Amino acid sequence: MNLAKLAVHKSQTFDDLYYFYSPFIEKALEQSLPDQINDARNVLKEAVLYSLLNGGKRIRPLLTLTAHHLFHDNYMRVMPVAVALEMIHAYSLIHDDLPSMDDDDFRRGKPSSHKQFGEDIAILAGDTLNTLAFETLSTQLDHFDAKDIVKVIQTVAKLSGINGLVGGQVLDINSAHEQQTLEALKAIHSKKTAALFECCIVCPALLENEATEVITILQQFSEHLGLLFQIVDDILDVTESKETLGKTPNKDVELNKLTYIKLFGLDKAKDLAKQEALFALKCLDQLDSKRTEPLKLIVGFILNRTH
Amino acid sequence: MNLAKLAVHKSQTFDDLYYFYSPFIEKALEQSLPDQINDARNVLKEAVLYSLLNGGKRIRPLLTLTAHHLFHDNYMRVMPVAVALEMIHAYSLIHDDLPSMDDDDFRRGKPSSHKQFGEDIAILAGDTLNTLAFETLSTQLDHFDAKDIVKVIQTVAKLSGINGLVGGQVLDINSAHEQQTLEALKAIHSKKTAALFECCIVCPALLENEATEVITILQQFSEHLGLLFQIVDDILDVTESKETLGKTPNKDVELNKLTYIKLFGLDKAKDLAKQEALFALKCLDQLDSKRTEPLKLIVGFILNRTH
Repeated sequence: MNLAKLAVHKSQTFDDLYYFYSPFIEKALEQSLPDQINDARNVLKEAVLYSLLNGGKRIRPLLTLTAHHLFHDNYMRVMPVAVALEMIHAYSLIHDDLPSMDDDDFRRGKPSSHKQFGEDIAILAGDTLNTLAFETLSTQLDHFDAKDIVKVIQTVAKLSGINGLVGGQVLDINSAHEQQTLEALKAIHSKKTAALFECCIVCPALLENEATEVITILQQFSEHLGLLFQIVDDILDVTESKETLGKTPNKDVELNKLTYIKLFGLDKAKDLAKQEALFALKCLDQLDSKRTEPLKLIVGFILNRTH
Repeated sequence: MNLAKLAVHKSQTFDDLYYFYSPFIEKALEQSLPDQINDARNVLKEAVLYSLLNGGKRIRPLLTLTAHHLFHDNYMRVMPVAVALEMIHAYSLIHDDLPSMDDDDFRRGKPSSHKQFGEDIAILAGDTLNTLAFETLSTQLDHFDAKDIVKVIQTVAKLSGINGLVGGQVLDINSAHEQQTLEALKAIHSKKTAALFECCIVCPALLENEATEVITILQQFSEHLGLLFQIVDDILDVTESKETLGKTPNKDVELNKLTYIKLFGLDKAKDLAKQEALFALKCLDQLDSKRTEPLKLIVGFILNRTH
């Protein structure tokens, strides 16, 4: 593992980091489906892989592996967590894109799942990925203590359900008809984005039995990173073309959704993004670790991304 | 707990059993949602409870509690399993009823979730219930060994995903276009119905560390019970009215689905149902337990039910 450690340490840019980890992540994702399927369920398997292996930047797996790297070598120990959380992310995108939700025909430049496979298979592919995440967590982490595996499953279930990801989606859908305040906006994104980031960043620490204070700092970091991600998302929605975004721009305006742009305008939103990035970096500096650089590169990437 | 034991033992009919257990089951279901929700997510909570507290016969919770009763007192120990599996059942019904799937406007005589709350909230209510099942299993079973909790989560995840419930739903959807053989039909129902029954019946045994041979018999019992349930479902679909069924009859014929009626006709299907019921009862007689009567009452109920 020394080679891996060196390669991560030598990463000067987000791209270095991405190109170091991504082959391992992609391979783990490719191998994550039960392979004894050879009947009419092939279409379901195809739909699951279509969404899972779609060439995303793998922010969530990268967060998981680099959060583990803060205090430990051998990132492969937490790869099942990285895979499971990418599955939950993929399922949430499939369901978000459905006609009755955000009605998005494109995702990362390709037809969204329901355009490619039909709504029925898209819904079931989402359900499969959601369930498969818990199968992965419960079957592939047996090198850790069972008590800690249960803690991780608790954390992921809590933060991806009504008090996390799914709850955030409902707040988002209803934001057009609710009071449009900063508090409401933060509540949406704390749940819709920061909650899953928190899973990525905190679960490795739970598995490796880090101290409570470390976990508290990691939670604060996750919150700032989630808000940062979402402010940038709002900015990109109004500044970038469909080609750059890989999905339909201006959807938020069209749906009268509550966004940072709507509340503050473009310039102020850009300032707020920088502020959240700084808050996030400060959290990392509070950690007693000399290996915060990879996570800092991810903060920079999220701040400066164009899609 | 002696009183409870007595009451279960004295059950002469399925109704005795149902009226003994159901207040505890209903209370556990009512209390199963996080209660700190008081914002736009209220509609999600309402949709979740609408489907969860819908006055069903609670076959899955009853199976869980009576399977535990085979060898143990204090059924409250496995109530969280009963609740979690009823959540998974409820989520699968919500998603099955959607316009892009079975397109059912009614469920147990009331508007189905998407008719009541809209498709977006119905999809998210299903997602919430799926996730909440894993939250329940990981947070409410801490009186058992963590290793066994992980085993239960594995079992539920495997049997409710692509190799279980969701996979069965895809086989079912595609059955109109596939070869319509008994083998294909059994594959659908083994996954669509028997898999979740198996969770109910086997998980208490996993938690209480029963012997492998016991678990094997319980799995065989589940398989027969699942097929029995489905044959009766097919029969009711063509023999009962909307009023009795609480949902639209003749849906299977309309969608050209593969059913026992289509393959064998009504009379032969009735014979097959009796045969599966007998197989199921024989499995129970192989168990070294004097407490098989409650499960036998459930077999009888499933065979003779009219909705």
